[in-house]
Parts: sequence; C-alpha cells; structure tokens
Amino acid sequence: MTYCVGLLVKEGLVMLADTRTNAGIDNISLYRKLRVFGEEGKRIVAIASAGSLSVTQAAINKLREGVRIPGREGLFFVETAPTMFRVAEVVGHALKQARHEIDETVDSEAVQTGASFLVGGSIGGGAPSLFLIYGEGNFIECGIETPYLQIGELKYGKPILDRLLLYRTPLKEALKLGILSMNSTIKSNLSVGLPVDLLVLKPGHSAAITFRIEAGDPYYEELGLRWQLALQEALDSIPDPPYLPADG
Amino acid sequence: MTYCVGLLVKEGLVMLADTRTNAGIDNISLYRKLRVFGEEGKRIVAIASAGSLSVTQAAINKLREGVRIPGREGLFFVETAPTMFRVAEVVGHALKQARHEIDETVDSEAVQTGASFLVGGSIGGGAPSLFLIYGEGNFIECGIETPYLQIGELKYGKPILDRLLLYRTPLKEALKLGILSMNSTIKSNLSVGLPVDLLVLKPGHSAAITFRIEAGDPYYEELGLRWQLALQEALDSIPDPPYLPADG
Repeated sequence: MTYCVGLLVKEGLVMLADTRTNAGIDNISLYRKLRVFGEEGKRIVAIASAGSLSVTQAAINKLREGVRIPGREGLFFVETAPTMFRVAEVVGHALKQARHEIDETVDSEAVQTGASFLVGGSIGGGAPSLFLIYGEGNFIECGIETPYLQIGELKYGKPILDRLLLYRTPLKEALKLGILSMNSTIKSNLSVGLPVDLLVLKPGHSAAITFRIEAGDPYYEELGLRWQLALQEALDSIPDPPYLPADG
Repeated sequence: MTYCVGLLVKEGLVMLADTRTNAGIDNISLYRKLRVFGEEGKRIVAIASAGSLSVTQAAINKLREGVRIPGREGLFFVETAPTMFRVAEVVGHALKQARHEIDETVDSEAVQTGASFLVGGSIGGGAPSLFLIYGEGNFIECGIETPYLQIGELKYGKPILDRLLLYRTPLKEALKLGILSMNSTIKSNLSVGLPVDLLVLKPGHSAAITFRIEAGDPYYEELGLRWQLALQEALDSIPDPPYLPADG
C-alpha cells in the first residue's frame, strides 16, 4: 500500500509520499514514490505514484524515453511540455500505455495492475498546479474548493484535511497538515511507513525544497507527540455529552 | 454504507450507529441499525449492523424467532443465552444462516451479501463486553489493548481512536471520542449520516441509556464546531516544520 497527498494552497504546493511497498503483508520493501523531473530554474514536475509498482515503474520509464500520443507525431516529454496541463496529459498517456502493455503480458485476473499518479509542479516559476492521473489515463486538476488530492490509502488521512485545510491556509500550516495526514495514516495502516519524501514549491520559485523524513527525525517525532497531547487537551475542553447515565 | 463503533472502557460500554443506507448513491434511506434486546434490570444486548440490509434484517428476524445451532436441540435466543459469549455465538449462527439462505436465492455474484454485527451488552449487571460478528458467523471479542471495534466505513473514524482511546479512558471521554469518530466519518463520507443512535452502559447497571442524535442536535453541533476550533489551535501550537523554503 501507499499514501501520497498533494496540498495546493495560495502560497504554494506541498507533496508527500511514503516509501513502503508490499506484496503481501510478509514482503515489505522500500521504494521511492516521489520523483522530481525538470531543470532547476526552469520547471519542477514532481510525480508521486500509488498502485502496482511494475506499472508505475514502466510508466516512469516511458516518461524518461519519451511518450507516444496517438494521432500526434514524435515523442512527448515532461521536460518539454508547454504547460502543466500538457504535462499531466503526457503522464496520463504513459500510465495508460504501461498498464495496457502489462495487462497484455500477464493474466490480469490474477495480477492487480491498478495505478495512479499525483503530478504537481510549475513551469517558469508560475503558480504551481496539481493533478491526479487515473490508471485509465484521464486526469483531474486540484481546485480551490478542495485544495488537496490523494492517492493510495487515503481514508485515514482525509478527515484532518477536510476539517482544517483551506486554499487560504498558509503554506507552513499546509505542510504541517500534510505531515499529520501522513502520520495518521502510518499509525493506522502498517503498509504505509517511513521514510516519507516531501516536496515544497512556492510560486515564483523555480526550485523546490525536497526532504526525506527518516525514522527518528526529531521534528516528525515531536509533531506526533505534540499532536497527541493537543488532541487530548482539545477533547478535555469539550463539555460532557448530555447522553450519559446518572452516576450511582 | 454504514459506520458503527463500540468502545469498551473500564467504566463501561459505548455503542454508536448511523442510520443511513444506500443502494447506489441516488437511493438513500433511513434504517435503524442499533437494536436493543433483553429485559431492563436483567440483561441488555445491543446489536449494531453493517452490510447488506436484507441479510441483517433476516438475521435479526431469526434472533426474534429463535436460532437453530447445528448439533444442538431446540431454539436459541439472545434473551436466554447464559453468557455474552453465548449471545455472540447465537448471533453468529443467525447471521451465517441468513447469509446462506439469501446466497441460495439470489445470484450471489451480482448481489453483495456481506454483513457484520457488533454485539455489546451485559447480563445481570456484570461488566459489559463487546464482540464483532463476521458474516461467516465467527466472532472476536474486544480486548483492553485495542478497546474498540468497528464495522462498515471504519477508516475515517479510526485515527482519533488510535490516538486517544485507552481502556482507562473515562466513560464520558469515550463517549465524546465515539461521537467525534462518527462526526469525522460523516464529514468525509456522504453515505454515512445522521440521525445517529447511541447506547451507553455502565457496569452494575442493568439499564442502558439510549439516545438518537438528530440533525440540529445542539450538543452534536457544538461538538463539531469546538473540535474544529480546538484542532486549529492545536495545529497552530506546533512549531513550523524545518523543511520550508526560505522566504523571498
């Protein structure tokens, strides 16, 4: 399993991806699921992947070699697509083709080839944008009403985003929320785990901050402890329910 | 969809169940999913159901008419089983038989007959216990290490329980946590909705408090608002992540 989340607020883009993959509960490995394409100063395109590792790796390889788009001449690359929308389109074709090729070579009844991508970034220092690419190759763009997109094991980490994340949320708060959303998922699902890769991109910047949170990271550990204490205080501050039995 | 949760702490038992059922997103109805059996002063057995409504209704009907258990004489009832473990056993047989009968009459490839129950209660004012009954008829009992059980749409409401619920958590805090767990689920999944039925049972009491939280319930609304504010304060109190880009 995997959990990847992208948060797109006014001040910028945050993307997080865990690194755990598993083939059954007894076969766990570590793979990077957040990759950065582009050239510093010109474009940043970050791609986070969930689902079948063979499919997502094959799709990433297509992006490196160039992607054919039916009805159009030549090869298409993330590095040269003119807009982020066109980047998403190239990634969608790569993913769809990778799935189809693998479906043809395996008995797809038995092998799960579902996969999806989050694609975020900006070109020429413009405002970042964020897309979710489905396994069929179509995609949606993140909007300001629901300023996040998730792939993989998304349910555990969704309530905190639904309660607190707005488009006007400051970038540093969005980053905290992304880390907390990941932390909630890691606590509730063993198949999502550290290290966690993150990327932060601000408008007007053509370079992104990337960081890998390893087990034992002091900020991550403090965040988890402080959040637990703050939640307990929040719970204590709520009046008692009127639905309790009388004592005695 | 459905969300039902039972919380079993030292001071007692809390059970909550929503009331929304749906056959497709465009066909939503309201059904009671938390039923109370037994006789006040003698025994309280609460049964919460998730999954196929036709299966859970058929199983409840079997409990009313009496359940046959293979290899044993006569009919078995929740109202006369000697222990809560035996109550769970009777419910398990009712559920398994209801599923099998419905599987035989329908094309089970097309009709989902998955279903499960939470069974909580106490006999003769003893300490409450809590069981999860699977569709196959087997069951597990809630233990003190993970003092809750869930059925239905369980993921959205799990992180808050994993973070804050302990066996030693006071009953009133457990009730708040159960309501918040339900509230988180309702916020993130449209197919779980108010009204919510709840039950609170303390050891030494042979009567339970039951209550239906309707839309507009003042405490429920205040709880949601206060929790949101408290979470925002908690988020603000956490130091900024060290992974941010420098300003400018």
